[in-house]
Amino acid sequence: MNTFGNNFRCTTFGESHGKALGVVIDGCPPGVPLTETDVQPLLDRRRPGQSDLTTQRKEGDRVEILSGTFEGNTTGTPIALIVRNTDMKTEDYLPLKEQFRPGHADFTYQAKYGIRDYRGGGRSSGRETISRVAAGAVAMKVLGYAGVSISGRVTGVHGKTLPAEMESEIRAARDVGNSVGGIVEVVAKGTPPGIGDPVSGKLDAAIAHAMMGIGSVKGVEIGEGFHSAALFGSENNDEMAPEGFLTNHAGGILGGISTGADIIVRIAIKPTPSISKEQNTVTVTGSPAKISVKGRHDPCIAPRIVPVAEAMLALVLLDGLLEQLKYSGFREFLKNNRS
Amino acid sequence: MNTFGNNFRCTTFGESHGKALGVVIDGCPPGVPLTETDVQPLLDRRRPGQSDLTTQRKEGDRVEILSGTFEGNTTGTPIALIVRNTDMKTEDYLPLKEQFRPGHADFTYQAKYGIRDYRGGGRSSGRETISRVAAGAVAMKVLGYAGVSISGRVTGVHGKTLPAEMESEIRAARDVGNSVGGIVEVVAKGTPPGIGDPVSGKLDAAIAHAMMGIGSVKGVEIGEGFHSAALFGSENNDEMAPEGFLTNHAGGILGGISTGADIIVRIAIKPTPSISKEQNTVTVTGSPAKISVKGRHDPCIAPRIVPVAEAMLALVLLDGLLEQLKYSGFREFLKNNRS
Amino acid sequence: MNTFGNNFRCTTFGESHGKALGVVIDGCPPGVPLTETDVQPLLDRRRPGQSDLTTQRKEGDRVEILSGTFEGNTTGTPIALIVRNTDMKTEDYLPLKEQFRPGHADFTYQAKYGIRDYRGGGRSSGRETISRVAAGAVAMKVLGYAGVSISGRVTGVHGKTLPAEMESEIRAARDVGNSVGGIVEVVAKGTPPGIGDPVSGKLDAAIAHAMMGIGSVKGVEIGEGFHSAALFGSENNDEMAPEGFLTNHAGGILGGISTGADIIVRIAIKPTPSISKEQNTVTVTGSPAKISVKGRHDPCIAPRIVPVAEAMLALVLLDGLLEQLKYSGFREFLKNNRS
Amino acid sequence: MNTFGNNFRCTTFGESHGKALGVVIDGCPPGVPLTETDVQPLLDRRRPGQSDLTTQRKEGDRVEILSGTFEGNTTGTPIALIVRNTDMKTEDYLPLKEQFRPGHADFTYQAKYGIRDYRGGGRSSGRETISRVAAGAVAMKVLGYAGVSISGRVTGVHGKTLPAEMESEIRAARDVGNSVGGIVEVVAKGTPPGIGDPVSGKLDAAIAHAMMGIGSVKGVEIGEGFHSAALFGSENNDEMAPEGFLTNHAGGILGGISTGADIIVRIAIKPTPSISKEQNTVTVTGSPAKISVKGRHDPCIAPRIVPVAEAMLALVLLDGLLEQLKYSGFREFLKNNRS
Repeated sequence: MNTFGNNFRCTTFGESHGKALGVVIDGCPPGVPLTETDVQPLLDRRRPGQSDLTTQRKEGDRVEILSGTFEGNTTGTPIALIVRNTDMKTEDYLPLKEQFRPGHADFTYQAKYGIRDYRGGGRSSGRETISRVAAGAVAMKVLGYAGVSISGRVTGVHGKTLPAEMESEIRAARDVGNSVGGIVEVVAKGTPPGIGDPVSGKLDAAIAHAMMGIGSVKGVEIGEGFHSAALFGSENNDEMAPEGFLTNHAGGILGGISTGADIIVRIAIKPTPSISKEQNTVTVTGSPAKISVKGRHDPCIAPRIVPVAEAMLALVLLDGLLEQLKYSGFREFLKNNRS
Repeated sequence: MNTFGNNFRCTTFGESHGKALGVVIDGCPPGVPLTETDVQPLLDRRRPGQSDLTTQRKEGDRVEILSGTFEGNTTGTPIALIVRNTDMKTEDYLPLKEQFRPGHADFTYQAKYGIRDYRGGGRSSGRETISRVAAGAVAMKVLGYAGVSISGRVTGVHGKTLPAEMESEIRAARDVGNSVGGIVEVVAKGTPPGIGDPVSGKLDAAIAHAMMGIGSVKGVEIGEGFHSAALFGSENNDEMAPEGFLTNHAGGILGGISTGADIIVRIAIKPTPSISKEQNTVTVTGSPAKISVKGRHDPCIAPRIVPVAEAMLALVLLDGLLEQLKYSGFREFLKNNRS
Repeated sequence: MNTFGNNFRCTTFGESHGKALGVVIDGCPPGVPLTETDVQPLLDRRRPGQSDLTTQRKEGDRVEILSGTFEGNTTGTPIALIVRNTDMKTEDYLPLKEQFRPGHADFTYQAKYGIRDYRGGGRSSGRETISRVAAGAVAMKVLGYAGVSISGRVTGVHGKTLPAEMESEIRAARDVGNSVGGIVEVVAKGTPPGIGDPVSGKLDAAIAHAMMGIGSVKGVEIGEGFHSAALFGSENNDEMAPEGFLTNHAGGILGGISTGADIIVRIAIKPTPSISKEQNTVTVTGSPAKISVKGRHDPCIAPRIVPVAEAMLALVLLDGLLEQLKYSGFREFLKNNRS
Repeated sequence: MNTFGNNFRCTTFGESHGKALGVVIDGCPPGVPLTETDVQPLLDRRRPGQSDLTTQRKEGDRVEILSGTFEGNTTGTPIALIVRNTDMKTEDYLPLKEQFRPGHADFTYQAKYGIRDYRGGGRSSGRETISRVAAGAVAMKVLGYAGVSISGRVTGVHGKTLPAEMESEIRAARDVGNSVGGIVEVVAKGTPPGIGDPVSGKLDAAIAHAMMGIGSVKGVEIGEGFHSAALFGSENNDEMAPEGFLTNHAGGILGGISTGADIIVRIAIKPTPSISKEQNTVTVTGSPAKISVKGRHDPCIAPRIVPVAEAMLALVLLDGLLEQLKYSGFREFLKNNRS
């Protein structure tokens, strides 16, 4: 339940205020050049404290590769990556031991496990995405050899879509102790046609799973997405010509399999639930209470979701690509042996 | 890749114009009353030919249970259900052997497998959902014992939301040989808090996977969904009181775990790609061609997606419920043995 | 729990006296010629009633392919195979409704599920192996294109190893209403080196899993097996020369990965538990009882295990072969793109 | 492929001479008291250098829990355990860079991956079992609350079964630069009936998989095992009486499901392949060579396999126990809601 993928399998671990976060990657092809320098830059991108619009928690977040490489190349054995936690202000969270924060997983973790690491959200903290970004960095390195590249950006904040307006919305929310939601779009270029498995292994289903599983994501769409519900078939179909698809309303996926066109994914990100505005809540024993969440929080988490969403898309695409290699590999046997 | 679920595992098979479609359910709890009469009514709901707005292909779609029950109860062994195909007009599809239909999986299946059963879309046909609905019927029967119920409805067609307008949009599209998209909403009541596993097994991620994997679905959202991107945190958070959550913007899921509130899912359904309006396409050898898709097609597939979406939600919820029983079961051991 | 394999995934279903037994194969490479005539001969080999030494239950055991092929070739979609039960003498088993047969799974199924299909052992019957043999037949067809062939034989019965003696032991046991155990050896030729994944996916571990999971099997060994425990390292090591390994004590597997030499597996098969000799047992309510198991039973099940063991080895090897194609496939990318 | 289990999932990583070895445990029930002091004693038992009969490599092998516990209890989130490598004499292995050691995985890793970490066997080293023992220690702690206990011992060395003779065989082999094989027996007490899933999830199949996957194991048997092949049915069946099974030839498992009796497993361990006696081999480029393996090696690895085999049995039993909790948990729903 903490493992992504069938072929490029990433098992993550770690809590916000525990000793370390990390991931074990099982199924990485051997012979791929890989060192910490391939991973660190992506962790730096997701790191807090990079602008005045993100949380001021300053962590080094230095990644260490514990296994799975030899003389700078992957060996095919599991690659363990860890990032030790260093800047932990546990005392900030002590008041939250007794209360559930609205919009957070405090209540549901308690309901599920009967116990919860309340320090900074524990496993449900945004810091959990460190493991995803680290794994995604490895996936991107591998995907590069197959000609696939991925990039994302914030395309909406609190209903606005122009950069200056989006920034202004974030500042305005922050200044009143509130927060705002946003939209992130991620695009993959160079995915060959044929990736994805029909029915349960559909590429768009796998993407939806990967994206909706990022904390704070409440919606996922591919290509025209929700807009397609308001279109005619004649508007939404992508006609074909010898040179390829004439449009890309499908967002690069038909029948759960990649078409070769750009894969286009958009996700909806809810407003950060940690706000200093006072809200009604209950204590762990069910008594009514008032809460104002202090501490270091992003007024809009969308910008920091970008590298996470890119990472998740990389994990899905590499997983599908490796799956497809079985078929293409076997085709060679058939070619050689079928009379 | 044709299996859903980790605990209530459903492996589906079958093509539109093959001998039969079906599903093998592995992991159904023993002792649950189950006969064909529990499954047939749901298959009847998804069946074509029920109104003048749906395809006129008339199939009996009679389900048969081949294994896994004894004297009318499940035994804990795999339950195989099959539905034989009977009303197959293969000749309708012969012209499509040489051409790729826009918006369909014809091209991508060919790209992936190097071979495709072109009769009625083969595995990519909407008939594949028979297996899902049959499995979902079993899941709903089981969920009933845990107090969970599920129901869905069409909430939008081609941008309209009033029933009469939606129907009118479908008729208008049909009359010009075109098609329209729509929105389906599914709600589950009675899910206990604590269902869903953080990170990769998140309940909302599993729902997104299940829904996006239904043919024609291009978007999935939970609770406020994409609308949450335009909200303040103070608007989107669900405050709590001793009697429970005061609102349900979260759609019943926080941190990937059920809150106990209604689980609310909406999906975007693209316009049926099969339209008689002429479109540009290519032949299997890459030459330009014109295509007008004849045959029996729904001008809007949303109404027939409703029972499928209900079924998929049932599969996900039962899977999560069984997962959680491990934890609650072990808690008894701890209670009894921890001094 | 009824699924074998990660890449060539076979989900089986069916009870001894239910409507049908079968298997759904997910992950079969596309483009492989396959019809019922590839499967039927192997089912005929395992079928009862072929000699006076095997049970006289005479079933047609005709296989039908329901999906996954088109015009005589696999398409890459799930292949469902079913065999309908026809010669069911349920009344033979009615007396067993109230008693547990020693050496059978009657008691354990009741303990596990709280319900059991007592007719002929239900799911725990030897007829369950029909599904395995059918799946194995497909695997063997596929493996043939990769140059792998598999064959097994009985190498021991009740401590004897000469054919005439083994036959004599079986007859002697049968004549006194008793049964005897035996040894089956299966050998795979042509497996390329490099198949199998270290640690949890080891080839020998997968073989052990597959073999020990056959009903009545109580031991599995590879190469020298238990005999290796009595050897010196200098006797057991296989020295190497430029032309290959000089011996094959390892049975074709080192470190969980195939060496390219013959894969040699032996399994221990317990005496058929169904004997007409009277034994002590208990009723389902726990009262003491005497039982003499009537009906059609093999006095030694080893001969009929041979095609089952061959099938299981085929499933494991094909699964490992497909896994390895991912690595070899990716090596091409690296070769082409690594400067 | 480096993950054991479906419910209590253990993903291991690490090489003999890499930075660290470890395991991530996903699916551990919450609320179980757990600290490093529960794990360290079992690692100490498997550690080398404890007697003059085992390798003199002296490592601290100190375990550190990185995640998944809070205030001394498991939280239900992944538990990461690592052991850093400290006493690495890589130079000992440099001569082996160019040669394949007979009986080792050197050749097969090279064949599979095209690259290998030759230092001390890399991933194929016996040090990989540190991860298994660490995970097994956690499993044993959890199993304790369910009343299950496990213990193993060496029951044979080089054909001898008396302790003094076994020790003498090991010394004799060591003194001539050779090695010997052995037998280990592991017994689990207190397993409730009903654990294990028929067909692919059989308890004995899972045990066989777990045991055969330990390096150097070439055979696995349950209860009478290979000896059952030489018995009559009347000798091998375990008759039943109201007080339970009268014998335990089955080794505690019938039809793949636990009977409640002791689970008895024996494994065959080949002689350590690293011997100083000169052997024929080839270089990585295929030229003939002579090799005499120097370094710190156990003349008989059986004693050090004991804690590993115990750990693997613990992993399998806990996995099956958690699986069964789903069924027993659901039974409560049925009881309460079935009229």
